[in-house]
Amino acid sequence: MPSRVEIHYCTQCRWLLRAAWMAQELLTTFEDEIGELVLKPGSGGVFEVRADDQVVWSRKEAGRFPEITELKQVVRDVIAPERHLGHADRKTGDR
Amino acid sequence: MPSRVEIHYCTQCRWLLRAAWMAQELLTTFEDEIGELVLKPGSGGVFEVRADDQVVWSRKEAGRFPEITELKQVVRDVIAPERHLGHADRKTGDR
Repeated sequence: MPSRVEIHYCTQCRWLLRAAWMAQELLTTFEDEIGELVLKPGSGGVFEVRADDQVVWSRKEAGRFPEITELKQVVRDVIAPERHLGHADRKTGDR
Repeated sequence: MPSRVEIHYCTQCRWLLRAAWMAQELLTTFEDEIGELVLKPGSGGVFEVRADDQVVWSRKEAGRFPEITELKQVVRDVIAPERHLGHADRKTGDR
């Protein structure tokens, strides 16, 4: 079943550009898995990514933004756990 | 109530880039009105924009992509009919 991935970002912080970039990266990598990529404006420094309603990244919790490779890994773990990500997977644990 | 705007685009046609650009334009212009901007991968040459479940642009029907100013006008007509769009409104009818 096609997955829903949501990026909730703070507009006051001007994070639309990075949210939209990450959206395009995810849509390119998970072209067959994602049914809807949702950009959701928010406030108060929010930067949260959900995959099928599970929070896979919270900037408040992690204290930072994800690297794009680790974002793909945590999204993959929920929506396509059997998928190997090639280059991106070689970086596991790296920053 | 925050609106849902959806851009349904054909991945085979490689229309992600323009869909994502239009998404950012709409999110910037309608920062307070849009609750969710949905990028929805599709196929078969689809390029459709919905605002609160009304189709406001269909490439199949129109025979072309919208100018960004006219896209903002048709989205505005549904989600913020009282809003004046400044520059964009001066172009009504122009191409």
